[in-house]
Amino acid sequence: MNTRWDNEIWQLRETVAGLHSALTRYGLVAWTAGNVSARVPGQDLMVIKPSGVDYDDLSADNMVVCDLNGTVVDGEHSPSSDTAAHAYVYRAMPEVGGVVHTHSGYATAWAARGESIPCHLTAQADEFGGEIPAGPFALIGGDDIGKGIVATLSGHRSPAVLMRNHGVFTIGKDARAAVKAAVMCEDVARTAHLARALGPPVPMAQADIDALYHRYQNVYGQRPASTSS
Amino acid sequence: MNTRWDNEIWQLRETVAGLHSALTRYGLVAWTAGNVSARVPGQDLMVIKPSGVDYDDLSADNMVVCDLNGTVVDGEHSPSSDTAAHAYVYRAMPEVGGVVHTHSGYATAWAARGESIPCHLTAQADEFGGEIPAGPFALIGGDDIGKGIVATLSGHRSPAVLMRNHGVFTIGKDARAAVKAAVMCEDVARTAHLARALGPPVPMAQADIDALYHRYQNVYGQRPASTSS
Amino acid sequence: MNTRWDNEIWQLRETVAGLHSALTRYGLVAWTAGNVSARVPGQDLMVIKPSGVDYDDLSADNMVVCDLNGTVVDGEHSPSSDTAAHAYVYRAMPEVGGVVHTHSGYATAWAARGESIPCHLTAQADEFGGEIPAGPFALIGGDDIGKGIVATLSGHRSPAVLMRNHGVFTIGKDARAAVKAAVMCEDVARTAHLARALGPPVPMAQADIDALYHRYQNVYGQRPASTSS
Amino acid sequence: MNTRWDNEIWQLRETVAGLHSALTRYGLVAWTAGNVSARVPGQDLMVIKPSGVDYDDLSADNMVVCDLNGTVVDGEHSPSSDTAAHAYVYRAMPEVGGVVHTHSGYATAWAARGESIPCHLTAQADEFGGEIPAGPFALIGGDDIGKGIVATLSGHRSPAVLMRNHGVFTIGKDARAAVKAAVMCEDVARTAHLARALGPPVPMAQADIDALYHRYQNVYGQRPASTSS
Repeated sequence: MNTRWDNEIWQLRETVAGLHSALTRYGLVAWTAGNVSARVPGQDLMVIKPSGVDYDDLSADNMVVCDLNGTVVDGEHSPSSDTAAHAYVYRAMPEVGGVVHTHSGYATAWAARGESIPCHLTAQADEFGGEIPAGPFALIGGDDIGKGIVATLSGHRSPAVLMRNHGVFTIGKDARAAVKAAVMCEDVARTAHLARALGPPVPMAQADIDALYHRYQNVYGQRPASTSS
Repeated sequence: MNTRWDNEIWQLRETVAGLHSALTRYGLVAWTAGNVSARVPGQDLMVIKPSGVDYDDLSADNMVVCDLNGTVVDGEHSPSSDTAAHAYVYRAMPEVGGVVHTHSGYATAWAARGESIPCHLTAQADEFGGEIPAGPFALIGGDDIGKGIVATLSGHRSPAVLMRNHGVFTIGKDARAAVKAAVMCEDVARTAHLARALGPPVPMAQADIDALYHRYQNVYGQRPASTSS
Repeated sequence: MNTRWDNEIWQLRETVAGLHSALTRYGLVAWTAGNVSARVPGQDLMVIKPSGVDYDDLSADNMVVCDLNGTVVDGEHSPSSDTAAHAYVYRAMPEVGGVVHTHSGYATAWAARGESIPCHLTAQADEFGGEIPAGPFALIGGDDIGKGIVATLSGHRSPAVLMRNHGVFTIGKDARAAVKAAVMCEDVARTAHLARALGPPVPMAQADIDALYHRYQNVYGQRPASTSS
Repeated sequence: MNTRWDNEIWQLRETVAGLHSALTRYGLVAWTAGNVSARVPGQDLMVIKPSGVDYDDLSADNMVVCDLNGTVVDGEHSPSSDTAAHAYVYRAMPEVGGVVHTHSGYATAWAARGESIPCHLTAQADEFGGEIPAGPFALIGGDDIGKGIVATLSGHRSPAVLMRNHGVFTIGKDARAAVKAAVMCEDVARTAHLARALGPPVPMAQADIDALYHRYQNVYGQRPASTSS
């Protein structure tokens, strides 16, 4: 199948390639260790970063189109080594339109300790609705990482999971929302780290966290919340 | 009301849009979480960042003009979700010409613990005149944040307040002075964090803090202190 | 000997000069304290950074070609003050095609304590196959640093060694692989530092570390693992 | 006196203006809080940054020429508020050709605790010859800061002093050497901070520190050590 002549997929290739610049801009990735994907709306396909290609060299042209089993449908490169995890999430969570994976440092430090990030910040209540949960340890190479992501995030407010000893996976209604969640996850993980380093943060009331979350998901930004930025 | 043909307001739109670059340059903001506003001199109006618009996309054109109740007077976008807090400050503190809000990491870590930053640095004595005070917790959506800012900063030397579990608000005689205070607040919060992480800082005498503050407010820079940079 | 007319060496000069940009981009070096070299394949020669030249001023033209005793063969500048260490590694480890030296901050902090970095991250298992070992203290000016690098890395999975009270040396099949190892070493050292700062990381099973290492060395990227990026 | 037509002074204005870019590039300064000066060789004059002017706006044209009492000789702007300290150093230390002042974060954290940085790194032995000393607290506005700098650095190997509760002053044979010392001071202060945060660094033998210092001052770089980079 050649998807190059499908205009929607081509635009999605451009979007996915371009969104990686937020990963480098915010320092979420070193070398090539982080990736963004997007579901092709209405098709059992996804667009994902090629494996081991420099961020500076990403373009619509070298993105890879896979089916939702992770099999390459179009593209000259091998897809990200994390493709199986992305694909599993799209199969299991039909509401998800974008997935991002990073090893961003502060969030991954929480993941190395297997600790969820408790919610002591209004920004975390807004975006994550409470704690950012730690997920299980899982080896790459099958569906274990995908299963761990889905088991942790299904029914959870947070669009981010801290996979133990590994790093961050985020989801969103589209790829941009998942990238936003990855950026905010590291920002919140950093501030929470810095706060706790010098003493205990002041707890927030659950009712306040709930109020902030519901407000943010409904009124923030120029458009419906989960696509705004 | 169409304020586009008012030359002073147009210049203020350009100034406010441009000042956001200091927030990104100094790493004070992630995604769209931070905003600058300016009072329109002599009118009950303010110019403020639109909600949820990328910093790269800010320009005079998409700034929003509101009255001091936060109602949009001119602009195609929704104003910042923090508009009510900015507006409250302008209503309550007529000497304030600019307001800035960020979640800059080190300062917000102090805010998460509900701690004021004690003054152990000459740079803090210069700009803040002593401690940078912690303010109360307040929910977004009404005047509570504005009231907390005003209650903390009225009669205080510091142009910055650390709103508990939330982040930083700064004030200034104009928007540039408020941006400077936001930049210096994070710089001071970072150094104070690093100092205390390895042991107690050496206290400064109150008389020295007073002398530094009075000197800086009166003689620093090419122009009167609070507008210099 | 004038190697300027040797096309392969000229290309290697360009490669080595260009790779230094990764050291500055990732903040691994201050001023001129860090260097990259490459072995000239099939010749007893190496290309290395000139001593004390700004990173912005590096080009193919000012790289230095030395023999594997560190004697300058071609070049108008003095070679890096670390040339003897690079040369020793090339003499002792024929499989090594590139060497990098930095004082990157987090990794050098582990080196200052003389501590190896234990493996609590999948990214570390991938690239380093387990701990990143601390090496001995050695003075510059002879073969002691080279001997310490070789003694530590011979037969070790890790391409990086933390030389005590000094900094990082990394090796690779070519200069790009050694630069990648230097970038990943600092990234892993930082995350490990942040993790341990707030409590003990969760241990990883040796079998999981082994499985990750073998997979990554064999299947990651578009090309064989050690040259991919 | 109009020094614009003196070619040597004009070149020094360009050099001093340009060297400030290293302060911003390495993140040593926030807003306008840091400055570089150079002695005019063979004349009782110095070139220094204007007060409160943005780093982006510095040029040869707006540098200020002062005599060694800090009185403006040529220039349309007020000189740096730290001019008296620079001038005192030039009067007291004829071998000094450049002075730099910053509040760089890690170094200033040591200064806030009034602690010297012990030497646990070869890079520190190279550049500073041992510890980086803490200096006294001194108020701005007279010769007290200058006296504190000179009292601490006279006869000391280190070109950097950590003025208590204040920040860093560095000296060099020219302005570039002083800037290098400021960059290396923050780099060393950061690594020393990170090392000690997780445990005690391994001590270095005084003989090793001495050997490194003497070698570096005599053989490093393309030119005599104190001007190399």
